[in-house]
Amino acid sequence: MPPSELFDALLGPSVGDTELLQAILDVEAALARAAAEAGVLPSDHAEAIAAVCEARRFDMAELARATRLAGNPAIAVVAALTALAPAGARGSVHIGGTSQDIVDNALQLIVQRRRVRIDAHLDHVGTATVTLAERHRSTLMAGRTLMQHALPITFGLKAAQWLAGVTDSRRRLRQHVLTVQFGGAAGTLASLGSTAVAATMRRSLAAHLGLADAPLPWPTARAQVASLGSTLAIACGSLAKMALDVELLMQTEVAELFERAAIGKGVSSTLPHKRNPVSAVSIRAAHQQAVGLASTLLFAMVQEHERAAGAWQGEWEPLMGLLRLAEGAAAQAADMVEGLEIDIERMRTNLDLTGGRVLAEAIVTALRPALGRDGADAVVRAAAAQPGPLRANLPATPEVAALGDTPFDPAHYLGSTDSFIDYALADWRSL
Amino acid sequence: MPPSELFDALLGPSVGDTELLQAILDVEAALARAAAEAGVLPSDHAEAIAAVCEARRFDMAELARATRLAGNPAIAVVAALTALAPAGARGSVHIGGTSQDIVDNALQLIVQRRRVRIDAHLDHVGTATVTLAERHRSTLMAGRTLMQHALPITFGLKAAQWLAGVTDSRRRLRQHVLTVQFGGAAGTLASLGSTAVAATMRRSLAAHLGLADAPLPWPTARAQVASLGSTLAIACGSLAKMALDVELLMQTEVAELFERAAIGKGVSSTLPHKRNPVSAVSIRAAHQQAVGLASTLLFAMVQEHERAAGAWQGEWEPLMGLLRLAEGAAAQAADMVEGLEIDIERMRTNLDLTGGRVLAEAIVTALRPALGRDGADAVVRAAAAQPGPLRANLPATPEVAALGDTPFDPAHYLGSTDSFIDYALADWRSL
Amino acid sequence: MPPSELFDALLGPSVGDTELLQAILDVEAALARAAAEAGVLPSDHAEAIAAVCEARRFDMAELARATRLAGNPAIAVVAALTALAPAGARGSVHIGGTSQDIVDNALQLIVQRRRVRIDAHLDHVGTATVTLAERHRSTLMAGRTLMQHALPITFGLKAAQWLAGVTDSRRRLRQHVLTVQFGGAAGTLASLGSTAVAATMRRSLAAHLGLADAPLPWPTARAQVASLGSTLAIACGSLAKMALDVELLMQTEVAELFERAAIGKGVSSTLPHKRNPVSAVSIRAAHQQAVGLASTLLFAMVQEHERAAGAWQGEWEPLMGLLRLAEGAAAQAADMVEGLEIDIERMRTNLDLTGGRVLAEAIVTALRPALGRDGADAVVRAAAAQPGPLRANLPATPEVAALGDTPFDPAHYLGSTDSFIDYALADWRSL
Amino acid sequence: MPPSELFDALLGPSVGDTELLQAILDVEAALARAAAEAGVLPSDHAEAIAAVCEARRFDMAELARATRLAGNPAIAVVAALTALAPAGARGSVHIGGTSQDIVDNALQLIVQRRRVRIDAHLDHVGTATVTLAERHRSTLMAGRTLMQHALPITFGLKAAQWLAGVTDSRRRLRQHVLTVQFGGAAGTLASLGSTAVAATMRRSLAAHLGLADAPLPWPTARAQVASLGSTLAIACGSLAKMALDVELLMQTEVAELFERAAIGKGVSSTLPHKRNPVSAVSIRAAHQQAVGLASTLLFAMVQEHERAAGAWQGEWEPLMGLLRLAEGAAAQAADMVEGLEIDIERMRTNLDLTGGRVLAEAIVTALRPALGRDGADAVVRAAAAQPGPLRANLPATPEVAALGDTPFDPAHYLGSTDSFIDYALADWRSL
Repeated sequence: MPPSELFDALLGPSVGDTELLQAILDVEAALARAAAEAGVLPSDHAEAIAAVCEARRFDMAELARATRLAGNPAIAVVAALTALAPAGARGSVHIGGTSQDIVDNALQLIVQRRRVRIDAHLDHVGTATVTLAERHRSTLMAGRTLMQHALPITFGLKAAQWLAGVTDSRRRLRQHVLTVQFGGAAGTLASLGSTAVAATMRRSLAAHLGLADAPLPWPTARAQVASLGSTLAIACGSLAKMALDVELLMQTEVAELFERAAIGKGVSSTLPHKRNPVSAVSIRAAHQQAVGLASTLLFAMVQEHERAAGAWQGEWEPLMGLLRLAEGAAAQAADMVEGLEIDIERMRTNLDLTGGRVLAEAIVTALRPALGRDGADAVVRAAAAQPGPLRANLPATPEVAALGDTPFDPAHYLGSTDSFIDYALADWRSL
Repeated sequence: MPPSELFDALLGPSVGDTELLQAILDVEAALARAAAEAGVLPSDHAEAIAAVCEARRFDMAELARATRLAGNPAIAVVAALTALAPAGARGSVHIGGTSQDIVDNALQLIVQRRRVRIDAHLDHVGTATVTLAERHRSTLMAGRTLMQHALPITFGLKAAQWLAGVTDSRRRLRQHVLTVQFGGAAGTLASLGSTAVAATMRRSLAAHLGLADAPLPWPTARAQVASLGSTLAIACGSLAKMALDVELLMQTEVAELFERAAIGKGVSSTLPHKRNPVSAVSIRAAHQQAVGLASTLLFAMVQEHERAAGAWQGEWEPLMGLLRLAEGAAAQAADMVEGLEIDIERMRTNLDLTGGRVLAEAIVTALRPALGRDGADAVVRAAAAQPGPLRANLPATPEVAALGDTPFDPAHYLGSTDSFIDYALADWRSL
Repeated sequence: MPPSELFDALLGPSVGDTELLQAILDVEAALARAAAEAGVLPSDHAEAIAAVCEARRFDMAELARATRLAGNPAIAVVAALTALAPAGARGSVHIGGTSQDIVDNALQLIVQRRRVRIDAHLDHVGTATVTLAERHRSTLMAGRTLMQHALPITFGLKAAQWLAGVTDSRRRLRQHVLTVQFGGAAGTLASLGSTAVAATMRRSLAAHLGLADAPLPWPTARAQVASLGSTLAIACGSLAKMALDVELLMQTEVAELFERAAIGKGVSSTLPHKRNPVSAVSIRAAHQQAVGLASTLLFAMVQEHERAAGAWQGEWEPLMGLLRLAEGAAAQAADMVEGLEIDIERMRTNLDLTGGRVLAEAIVTALRPALGRDGADAVVRAAAAQPGPLRANLPATPEVAALGDTPFDPAHYLGSTDSFIDYALADWRSL
Repeated sequence: MPPSELFDALLGPSVGDTELLQAILDVEAALARAAAEAGVLPSDHAEAIAAVCEARRFDMAELARATRLAGNPAIAVVAALTALAPAGARGSVHIGGTSQDIVDNALQLIVQRRRVRIDAHLDHVGTATVTLAERHRSTLMAGRTLMQHALPITFGLKAAQWLAGVTDSRRRLRQHVLTVQFGGAAGTLASLGSTAVAATMRRSLAAHLGLADAPLPWPTARAQVASLGSTLAIACGSLAKMALDVELLMQTEVAELFERAAIGKGVSSTLPHKRNPVSAVSIRAAHQQAVGLASTLLFAMVQEHERAAGAWQGEWEPLMGLLRLAEGAAAQAADMVEGLEIDIERMRTNLDLTGGRVLAEAIVTALRPALGRDGADAVVRAAAAQPGPLRANLPATPEVAALGDTPFDPAHYLGSTDSFIDYALADWRSL
């Protein structure tokens, strides 16, 4: 998706023409230097070429015209770069590469650079979530399944689960290996002749670009692109799960937490009393869009022969769009989590809304030794079906009397909550 | 910042901030005038507001900042518009509307405007395809199923099938009804009080915007948005089918037609002899991207209560993206079809590649009266399995001798081809 | 997706092998009769063929083996049908058709039959929703935007909006035109020779199948298939919007309505007190799955030449899956809406949760004549920002005193609610 | 009712009710044993329960009815299992687990079992592809970009690229970690009380199921499910790329290779001479369907609180569908690659179709030292633009004469082809 200030403000900074052009130029510069290191051209040519590889030197409108004719931006840039290079070095521009090498590596560079930013935003999200998990380790709230109260949990556990999603996303993104693409016009590097020279140049190119070496080019083997797309959509998905929880907890009837009130933030145009979940909304919108883009990349894997006629070209924008949405969602999530205002009293009040029925399982469990499974179930179901507090509805039998207070106290029915929080914190710290 | 020049050149003109902002302002102007016509505010207020509804008067960077805080662009624009309006008219800005009304109607306006452009491009595609269908009504070529020669067809029939896709797309796009959205803060138009005033204002708003009247607002009933997304993706799909055929027919071994050779068009960066299917590639890329965007709109239908918390906001960019891709694909298709260079001799040569086996069905059919179905099948299958021309392989039986030349002439085995072409042409003309 | 009793119970009745086989046989029978009517074969042959076109006569395992070899089920069925037909009529089996004609028409038949069932379920959904809209025309509840209380609405209006979705889905499904596919081996009907005979046979085939006539075959022009897929996904989407509202309103803290309590329905395996939104959950699951299937059909439009090598074959299951999901979702929705238990007192109680802030817009509107827009806004925002009921927080000024009780009564701030309900009811009845 | 025999023959063996039920029962048996090992119940209870955990003992129709009411199959199975268990052990059924634990673990078991089968099929694909890569290491063919001849490659290199896709898929699938799900009713394992007991039981459960331990349950943290879906779609995608190449190379005009001719395989119903790419078609259909299912899993990540109301339930079928499609595609690919018939002479003939223009880059490269880059380009472009063989069109200059034969021999313009093949083979062997 192309840059838009209006929507970039909500959804993340688009990869603009300049960012793409500079990445293409960085690849051309690295290609020239790698060629020089492999002895394919003089190193002063390489430096002369690299010296003009600055986006500001190029006329974007002219590049756009040439891109329309050529069908990809690399060909246009090569022509313009050749014209900009000193006359003596012109013959050394774009040696050994093909337009797909240039565009694929440029996109890898952009992924690499954007990944650093996404990771930094996720670090903020995680750090803020750690604080929530620790501070609210014992803050009781209702655990909800199918949107209904089920059992007590703590808000710390919910935050720990959010954290696990962030940990997972950072790990997946970091583990994604960005490899160099270097195959020449048909994936054989024939124009370089010698295999040894080609291998030297490829390793050097990878090193200049900071990409992993890939001895085999991958012009129509697009698993890594499709996989990255899914990984970015999954990162958005884990953030969107968090956002949905925030939205649900901000509902007027629930009111357990709120996005930070900032001047002008979340203001309704006509309803002066509302505070809208603005960041959460943007995160969910980003995820919804990311899935569509990721599905395009999965579909795009069916590529013809040694370079595809459409499927490859249809990867560029979705991939850049996914980077932007993941960055935007992560930034919004950091803002959201860092600013959350928690109402622990309301959490406790809500937990009591079922008149203690949220502890039905605890009471059944406590009654089982005396009444058996079916007997305990029957007693509690009968009591739960009456109006009024569950405890008061229980029959005045010796077995019920023997229960004492503990089964009626949600703080005593948290099971492994503490250890789950510990694990999530430790896993985050192990990143 | 302008939309991406580089990719817009290939994939179509993005809906930029200015286009969106102007559409929002057009809605605000229409809202003010409709309110005046309904007696809700003085008409000089409406005109004073309308007079400043020009995108160039607004500071996009400031709007972007406010959009980030508010969660949608309408709120930001309303604030800025209020500030720009003459002091006396400020209280009349945005009367009766809510931000969703503004954004939804603005998007409808953009759809309406873009649809005219898409339709015009499709008109060019269709007109050029009509010429092909007429000119090549009798130009023999191989009909191919599962990418293999099946039976003779004519290139005119293939063009007629392409045309049918264009006709269908234009018809679908034109039949899509764009309705006004007018519901106020929660879909009741409560701030307007009287139902009669509200209805008057809604009808007037629709008229000012050129949209169809919709007595019921649709803030979370998004079928029309999802349907439009699919319709645009389908339009891209029909063009992509055409593009795929062009790519397949441009293959080196097939070489039956070519995209126009223009200076610089379809040039490979390293292979001086190639002529690449640049337009076809862009069209297929556009379709691939369009499907992902359309799936986002289908998924987005699950919207909460009276306004969604994410699913609505995640519609804006995909919808605008689909408009751009459909326009771009249609423009590229017009360029592609208008410039097609057809090699009718090569078509004829290729048709003979199977040594007449492409007429096996014709011969079986001609032999059936004499040999029965199984007998005819067996004779032809046996002959087809030998190397060399099919006719020479047939046994020298009286039944075979009685066939004469006709079953071996592809021009006599075209069935309803002519009537199919006629129908496609007539259907196009009936639009 | 293949049949499964377990999941069909939740998600709808799959299209099974027998249903598909019978549809294929119905097409073969219709083809034979159409051929007879066109004079292509004797009518006693046609009747003899039609007489054995019963699924129970065929060995499914053997058909499966042959399908694997042939790549589609029609070829296998034709061979088996030929063997079953009386010897004299064998040569008349499958005259004029190709396997794509058979499969495409068989799928159209299945769509036609399933559409009747989907429409009937939607009729139940709509009828039950009409009752809700009428009965609760004045039942006050909170209108919620971005999941927060915004303004009062009535439950009747919410039901009317649900109804509008059902009306829309029925209309879209009914308006979808199912056309006959008749093109022969490469879309020319060459084996039939005469155009007149072919046209007669096609019209007769369409009539026998109850399909609309289509003078032009559409073997690789798949807009109608893709469009139907989207229409079915949209139908699921409108039901899923309703289901989501039900889930949100069933939340423990909201508790405004509930799915019917049936014996065993919605029971949690471990939590005796819960009542789960079982139907709503299934509807949302169906929609989520439907979107993926519909996106496959949109992708599938890129089909090669005169018959595709993969994209067509990959349409069959997604299309049948969509029919099943739409039918299942509609059946679940009928069950859900017919059984809804509404707590109108709780709706009223919840509406008061904001201490009257849900009427802030009403009060601002009422104060505007006296205080101006900004003045009214400021007074109400200040009062809303204090704890306690909004009305009590308002300053004791003459302007406030002059408001009287009306602006504080949600029943007086419903705007066009009644007319919106009327419209939705009238539109449903106009179907 | 069994899964669809007709389509399973083409697309892979569906996960049927029995397979799912047995997996659920395997989880219940493991749960009972794990509970016994943790001291939660007597081990004879566990064994008594495990003894009846056989799918054949259950009435599927009754389970289906109960599943409809309960909203998921686990609750139905638990009730039936309890009834089947010896009276004394009934209270020990399903201790500690919740229905999500059961279903999620059952699905993990199915993934685990299916993955073995997918891996075995991929092993066959890879092994057959290795043979092709080795045997055709030097078999010259045209390298094609944008579907046009670009440069010479060898068929061994194409096979090596296919192999790289298979290697990648096997590696991704093997690296996917399947973790145990154990969280109880709301993700706290509260019913088990002690954290130590719960941890012992979880580890034991994981061990019994052969799953990786996961200290933190993941009821609404679905990254691993979404990621697996994408991985399976990617596996289909790499196979579909191979299938598309096969289809393109089987085209009548290209005819460089063919799927194995088997009796009845690839036969057209009306065209006796055709040999259709049946396996390739099925693989592409599978990929097309897989992408839609994977996109549903990516959308499904937005899950509410501690258990989702629709998004989780909508994961089951898509996940099982993906397993089936990946298995089916891999099986078809093994059949396809093992049976490929290669026409190396036709490959050579096709390579010469451009009259040597496919070596234009080689000649430019060879001329550069003498003529400079622009000069060499100009000479070759001019020659390429004339009809007739490129070599004959070159000007009779000393520089051209000095070229000798080598630049005109495609076997000398293969660059790093050999080393690329070596790498792909080595990488496969390193699995």
